[in-house]
Amino acid sequence: MAAPHTILDHIENTLKALPLHGTPDELYAPMRYILTLGGKRFRPLLVVLAGGMYGAAEDTLLGGAAAVEIFHNFSLMHDDIMDQAPLRRGQPTVHHVWNIPTAILAGDGMLVKVYEVLLGAVAPHLLPEVLTRFNRTALEVVEGQQLDMNFEGRNDVTEAEYLEMIRLKTAVLVGFSLWLGARLGGASAAEAQELYLAGERMGIGFQLYDDYLDTFGDPALTGKQPGGDIRVSKKTWLLIHTLQHVAEGQKHEALAWLHDKTPARANNKVAAITALMAQAGAHSACQQISEAYYQQGLHKVKDLGTVPSYRTAIEELAGKLMQRTS
Amino acid sequence: MAAPHTILDHIENTLKALPLHGTPDELYAPMRYILTLGGKRFRPLLVVLAGGMYGAAEDTLLGGAAAVEIFHNFSLMHDDIMDQAPLRRGQPTVHHVWNIPTAILAGDGMLVKVYEVLLGAVAPHLLPEVLTRFNRTALEVVEGQQLDMNFEGRNDVTEAEYLEMIRLKTAVLVGFSLWLGARLGGASAAEAQELYLAGERMGIGFQLYDDYLDTFGDPALTGKQPGGDIRVSKKTWLLIHTLQHVAEGQKHEALAWLHDKTPARANNKVAAITALMAQAGAHSACQQISEAYYQQGLHKVKDLGTVPSYRTAIEELAGKLMQRTS
Repeated sequence: MAAPHTILDHIENTLKALPLHGTPDELYAPMRYILTLGGKRFRPLLVVLAGGMYGAAEDTLLGGAAAVEIFHNFSLMHDDIMDQAPLRRGQPTVHHVWNIPTAILAGDGMLVKVYEVLLGAVAPHLLPEVLTRFNRTALEVVEGQQLDMNFEGRNDVTEAEYLEMIRLKTAVLVGFSLWLGARLGGASAAEAQELYLAGERMGIGFQLYDDYLDTFGDPALTGKQPGGDIRVSKKTWLLIHTLQHVAEGQKHEALAWLHDKTPARANNKVAAITALMAQAGAHSACQQISEAYYQQGLHKVKDLGTVPSYRTAIEELAGKLMQRTS
Repeated sequence: MAAPHTILDHIENTLKALPLHGTPDELYAPMRYILTLGGKRFRPLLVVLAGGMYGAAEDTLLGGAAAVEIFHNFSLMHDDIMDQAPLRRGQPTVHHVWNIPTAILAGDGMLVKVYEVLLGAVAPHLLPEVLTRFNRTALEVVEGQQLDMNFEGRNDVTEAEYLEMIRLKTAVLVGFSLWLGARLGGASAAEAQELYLAGERMGIGFQLYDDYLDTFGDPALTGKQPGGDIRVSKKTWLLIHTLQHVAEGQKHEALAWLHDKTPARANNKVAAITALMAQAGAHSACQQISEAYYQQGLHKVKDLGTVPSYRTAIEELAGKLMQRTS
């Protein structure tokens, strides 16, 4: 197999060569812009690696890989509007460079482009199956984002509800990436389903670790302001665990801070809630549960595929994501 | 053939029976809401009538008909956010009943549902062709909406640019409706293409007539405040024609009114610009060009199909749309 960084080069070249041009350019420029902001590209890489596990040539998988990355970036473009986010990967978001109407429309166009690219990447006999699975995944991602927004107004979100939300919002697309690669690469429906479930487990693990890094990561390494989730009062696993494991008085203290949206007190809010999280043991509990989901996923991958080097590459990629510091 | 009102009943029942349910309900309730606000349903009716022209049973066409209507309502949901519209068919718009993030997400979900419904409605051997044509149509509709927004900031929009904008924003979906019905009903690709072009011509005619009614329709019959387009300074065909056909001084007068966004002077603005339009002959010129496009479309339909009663029904439906007073 090609080295992962070579595959990543091919993915970048595929994304650059996508037919994202047309009139008026205001509609297509935002699509090209968001795709050039970078990112780990680990979803498209999973498509190629999963297909490689079944002996498929890498270049037959690049179209499917691109489709997944376009979909991911479509969801970022619309989520950034909803979250009123000024920055994405350190650069101004699409609705800040252009405006909200254009960010809505360019996102809509990107979603259509996902289907256009899938149509060119999937053999006709597989098309109904791939589209059925993709439609379900896309609806689940949208459901996850709506649940996330619903949680903003609630203080009683349970751990189970949170895990279901990140399964939908984040993990199903990781699962779909592995599933799509496997199916395009010749895996049976049953094998592809095992990889789907592996990706879903790993995706939950990645997101929990992401939540952990947001609060407990080293700002010198993440390059981000620490406690971004706390600042916007996000109901993360860390917070839910903390609210359940501290004394009643401290719970009220945490909730009072959560309702405090005064910018001048934001640093105090981060310090106070981070201290309560540490006291509740949320720090290590989050690492443990994250690791547990990741291991469940790894375990499922273990016996799959016919080309071990690709399976090893998936295991190494997942391991890197679970040890990252930024 | 069944009477058009019976077909319309079947279309309503199909829309009511769509699987627009799931968790969280905040995502699906807006989809059901916008689809129950009514509308003429003339796009889905065209799907069924075009399929009937080639001898297809009506119930084999209802899925495709529903897909077109879902897409149309998806685009309305997102357009209403961009246009900051408070009302749609006399009822509060989705982003007013819920909020902008939910209207963005529910629209995204509806677009995925279009593909889900198409997948269930189209035989596998036709799927790539139908999806290719649908993707192109969907991108063109989005391009048309972006062009419409671009025109807001310009005073030099030409008649040709305006006609191209409404072709994309409105007419291609009318063409696609006839094309889809024909293709599902067994028409050859060439025959379906003729119907596509017929629909595109008729769609341009309908939109021009819509512009005419907005300014020159009888408010007692339209039920709308007259001059809605003028109030928001929309660059309609009427306005473009007027700016080209009045004296320089009057052109400046019209442009000054267009830039005047003072609510207290809105009625004066409508009266002044309407008077200039009448003086420029835009009133009758718009009726003429609208009728010309409609006749071009009708002419193309004339020799197509194997079941004349359906073709007659299309001609009658189009005739009604061109004689409507509201």
